[in-house]
Amino acid sequence: MYKVIVFDAYGTLFDTASVKEKLEEFAGEKSEAVSTLWRHTQLKHTFLRQVMERYITFDDITKQALEYALEVHKVPFTRQDTNQIFEEYLNLKAYKEAPDALKELHKMQKTLSVFSNGNMDMLDPVIENAGISNKLDSIISADSIKQYKPSPASYALILKYYQIKREEILFVSSNTWDVTGAAHFGFDTVWVNRDQSLFDKNGTLPKITVQDLDELVHWLKLN
Amino acid sequence: MYKVIVFDAYGTLFDTASVKEKLEEFAGEKSEAVSTLWRHTQLKHTFLRQVMERYITFDDITKQALEYALEVHKVPFTRQDTNQIFEEYLNLKAYKEAPDALKELHKMQKTLSVFSNGNMDMLDPVIENAGISNKLDSIISADSIKQYKPSPASYALILKYYQIKREEILFVSSNTWDVTGAAHFGFDTVWVNRDQSLFDKNGTLPKITVQDLDELVHWLKLN
Repeated sequence: MYKVIVFDAYGTLFDTASVKEKLEEFAGEKSEAVSTLWRHTQLKHTFLRQVMERYITFDDITKQALEYALEVHKVPFTRQDTNQIFEEYLNLKAYKEAPDALKELHKMQKTLSVFSNGNMDMLDPVIENAGISNKLDSIISADSIKQYKPSPASYALILKYYQIKREEILFVSSNTWDVTGAAHFGFDTVWVNRDQSLFDKNGTLPKITVQDLDELVHWLKLN
Repeated sequence: MYKVIVFDAYGTLFDTASVKEKLEEFAGEKSEAVSTLWRHTQLKHTFLRQVMERYITFDDITKQALEYALEVHKVPFTRQDTNQIFEEYLNLKAYKEAPDALKELHKMQKTLSVFSNGNMDMLDPVIENAGISNKLDSIISADSIKQYKPSPASYALILKYYQIKREEILFVSSNTWDVTGAAHFGFDTVWVNRDQSLFDKNGTLPKITVQDLDELVHWLKLN
């Protein structure tokens, strides 16, 4: 039985697409394209910096990726603009079912944790602003060892924090690369597939796939 | 003065988009979309496998990425089909100016090397089939240490092979992540920007940017 449920943050608890509204003020009809490229570049740069052994914090990567996405789509911007858009990352909306799902899991005596590539300066505000801080037992950042998921050393932080067996942890993410990394590390994994996407097999498959966090709660009640 | 010019293979000497023609037989008008997603997935999976410390060879990654791209675009396929499409990776076309540019560099007494993530089973045939094997002095694969570019250890293979100083090596790639990785490692870099793209700054910039390999030859003659 799982004692600790660990959630990825961006894309899993928080909807990164919710920056689109703010982006519309600056990028108009290009806001969706900018938002998508921003997220892709942000992820790609974390992976590459991990490979290159050139760590910088996630907030800096996020800002640089935003500048690139705006430049590619020829949206003029000032430093003040990008700071203002970046602030939205501290105000991302939680997925609508997330708060109640976390509450249900708490009732089931599960310990709930967030484990993210975001540094604490990003994680603390977004969790606070989304109103779910009282539903979480811990917030763990890969920044504490200056690494990025999906490195094995990053997932090891969870074991170190809780001092329990791998099989007592259930790892939940909507990011396929994160599910794959956690599964390679030895955790049971849940893929939150909100968009009916295909899992891009890169070595392992998730233990289960759910449409949203409600479905995860349902599955845990049955298992 | 540079003694050794090191070229990346895929996208730099060989046009990965030239698989599109073969893909058309299977994917029709979706061939361009499949080709793009195939290449993106292939790259993403190399980075992620390097981060996850779960190496498999580049030909296997390439085949898995192809299957994913076909599935996403709902193109039905058999194992025989994917094998046949994969074969095109052994028959990629060299960019049209590449053979003469290499010849010119040879005349300038430069030692010419290819350094790639591809394993030798992929590199040897593509170089042979493109008719440029007699223009290259060495083929180095990151597979020899079971790593992927842009890890620092991978670029170190070039130094180990040639036993010369970093500043005697010029590293040429059309892939921005490769340019960044090589620059972080300490090589002078050339970005071959064939599509008038923007460089996605992830820590460093190329020393120079050229449109194609002819422009590189021209620059080297002047410097």
